[in-house]
Amino acid sequence: MRIAVDVMGTDYGPQEIILGAIEAVKKFDCEVVLVGAEAVVKEWLQKYGALDNKKIIIKNATQIIGMQEQPALAVRNKKDASIVVASKLLRSKECDALVSSGSTGAASVAAVICVGRIKGVERPAIATAIPNLKGKTTVVLDSGSIVDARPLNMVQSAIMGSVYAEKILHIAKPKVGLLNVGEEEGKGNEQALATYPLLKHTKEIAFIGNVEGRDIPTGKVDVVVCDGFVGNVVLKFAEGFAKSLLTMIKNAIVNGGLFAKLGGLLIKPAMAKLKKQMDPSEYGGALLLGIKAPFIICHGSSKAKAITNAIGVALDFARNNVVDIISEKITEAEKRNEELEQ
Amino acid sequence: MRIAVDVMGTDYGPQEIILGAIEAVKKFDCEVVLVGAEAVVKEWLQKYGALDNKKIIIKNATQIIGMQEQPALAVRNKKDASIVVASKLLRSKECDALVSSGSTGAASVAAVICVGRIKGVERPAIATAIPNLKGKTTVVLDSGSIVDARPLNMVQSAIMGSVYAEKILHIAKPKVGLLNVGEEEGKGNEQALATYPLLKHTKEIAFIGNVEGRDIPTGKVDVVVCDGFVGNVVLKFAEGFAKSLLTMIKNAIVNGGLFAKLGGLLIKPAMAKLKKQMDPSEYGGALLLGIKAPFIICHGSSKAKAITNAIGVALDFARNNVVDIISEKITEAEKRNEELEQ
Repeated sequence: MRIAVDVMGTDYGPQEIILGAIEAVKKFDCEVVLVGAEAVVKEWLQKYGALDNKKIIIKNATQIIGMQEQPALAVRNKKDASIVVASKLLRSKECDALVSSGSTGAASVAAVICVGRIKGVERPAIATAIPNLKGKTTVVLDSGSIVDARPLNMVQSAIMGSVYAEKILHIAKPKVGLLNVGEEEGKGNEQALATYPLLKHTKEIAFIGNVEGRDIPTGKVDVVVCDGFVGNVVLKFAEGFAKSLLTMIKNAIVNGGLFAKLGGLLIKPAMAKLKKQMDPSEYGGALLLGIKAPFIICHGSSKAKAITNAIGVALDFARNNVVDIISEKITEAEKRNEELEQ
Repeated sequence: MRIAVDVMGTDYGPQEIILGAIEAVKKFDCEVVLVGAEAVVKEWLQKYGALDNKKIIIKNATQIIGMQEQPALAVRNKKDASIVVASKLLRSKECDALVSSGSTGAASVAAVICVGRIKGVERPAIATAIPNLKGKTTVVLDSGSIVDARPLNMVQSAIMGSVYAEKILHIAKPKVGLLNVGEEEGKGNEQALATYPLLKHTKEIAFIGNVEGRDIPTGKVDVVVCDGFVGNVVLKFAEGFAKSLLTMIKNAIVNGGLFAKLGGLLIKPAMAKLKKQMDPSEYGGALLLGIKAPFIICHGSSKAKAITNAIGVALDFARNNVVDIISEKITEAEKRNEELEQ
């Protein structure tokens, strides 16, 4: 297995991505292709003592797409951008999967243009796994790719998210819920009302009905289906809220007097363990589902550990034939719908 | 000042609501009208030793609207439901404000039908105040009343939420943000893209642009404007997430060995203080804005303290002429838009 790693355009610079890739090569049975400015990549590989590692290949790319650039325009104009060059390595099958922590928008566009969508998939969805109260993870999708999703997009998200949960997270018969403002079937906005009956008749998934915002962190379902606007807002809220809550707890302890401070020291190891369990970098990035090859999008602020974990997920993504299985199920669902329409 | 309190249809029964109202009469300079089954109300007043309190009036209502009933149908068919009878006390000006912790849907419908909308307000919005990192509160609206909001609804929410922040929360020139998937002006779904320019030209508010989910808990803005579907999902998520996170912390401490357990005991007072600061019942329920009289909707699981606080907010709502100020600003904005259209 050979993983393409886009090393450019991230918050902490190529060094974190390169370090994460070196660790991945040690940890997993794989090769990596580091895509970016050759001189910079070489310099860091030398510093990390990995320049002679045969499992690490360098692919030069002279351009970078920044976080603020208009994705479609940038991908079209910058033929030698690292994400474009990396995507082409997927198309030519020189690599089996791709990991990027640059602009999410640019990665999504490059994926569609350079690699292509799975036949029948109208729009790819971004799936994010978040830790839940059961000590497992809940897949939320779409988490930002498809705002103004049509009901068909939501159904395809449900199918793709279920394959992710089953084949990569190893959850047997993952339960799927539609994110809504109430549990009853008649609740919701136009989008949810139109999506509900379609999900009910999608045999490729185990649909259990509507779920509410409060059900996401409890692990009531394994896959939460929603519009990309809602998913993006909720996941970014979760990020900010967790941080705020932990800061508030820290402040309460620091300002709580001597005993509270001592207590704070005593619970430190337990809190560190919990923090690790909650740490997004443990979860190896988000999956761009619906593309003809495994595509992983990491947070722009990913550090080495997050990249190593993302490469691990990319390997699972490729080894477990997730793309082929999604393709089969999407075709199955499409065929049944055509039969129903006739 | 006289506050109508709907005592029926809540999770913990009339006793919690009645106890909260008794406390409010002691705490604030006001009268309350308890609306519900007379015999039941009398029984609890007697138990609490408040049957002779001249500031507590009973108004009999023989019917209840349950949480699962279809709101519009229930309000139309149950003329003697407590929420309907209470709303009529507002219309006749026998009461100055109303507090309910029954079905949110039924309360919203009763408000529109029995009390009526402020002239120019297309649809009332539910505003929820949540604690932020700055130790203040952020107003989120709409939090569940208007799913599939039109841009006009969002603009009116922004105006009404600003008045709430200024007149009840005492925030001078409250900053307003539009909840979106990115900060840049060109980001968003159709709804956000259409709403942004309208907010920009609304002189009644201090609009600072888009905010993301992560900005809600930090207090970056004082008023977050969003569609009712998104607001409902985010607020319910916050509720579930905070609970899950605290449970995870508790479990981490309990399972963290002897030192962690001792530490947990030492930080208990500091955590209790923080819990109080985060407790939704301290915030006195959500405000139904756009109705011709002050209308407060509490969580169905409200206990006595939440009701006492809600009555306090209802008094502020009435005393600070929030309804009149909203009415003026909505008319102002409407007039300017008409002039622009000509």
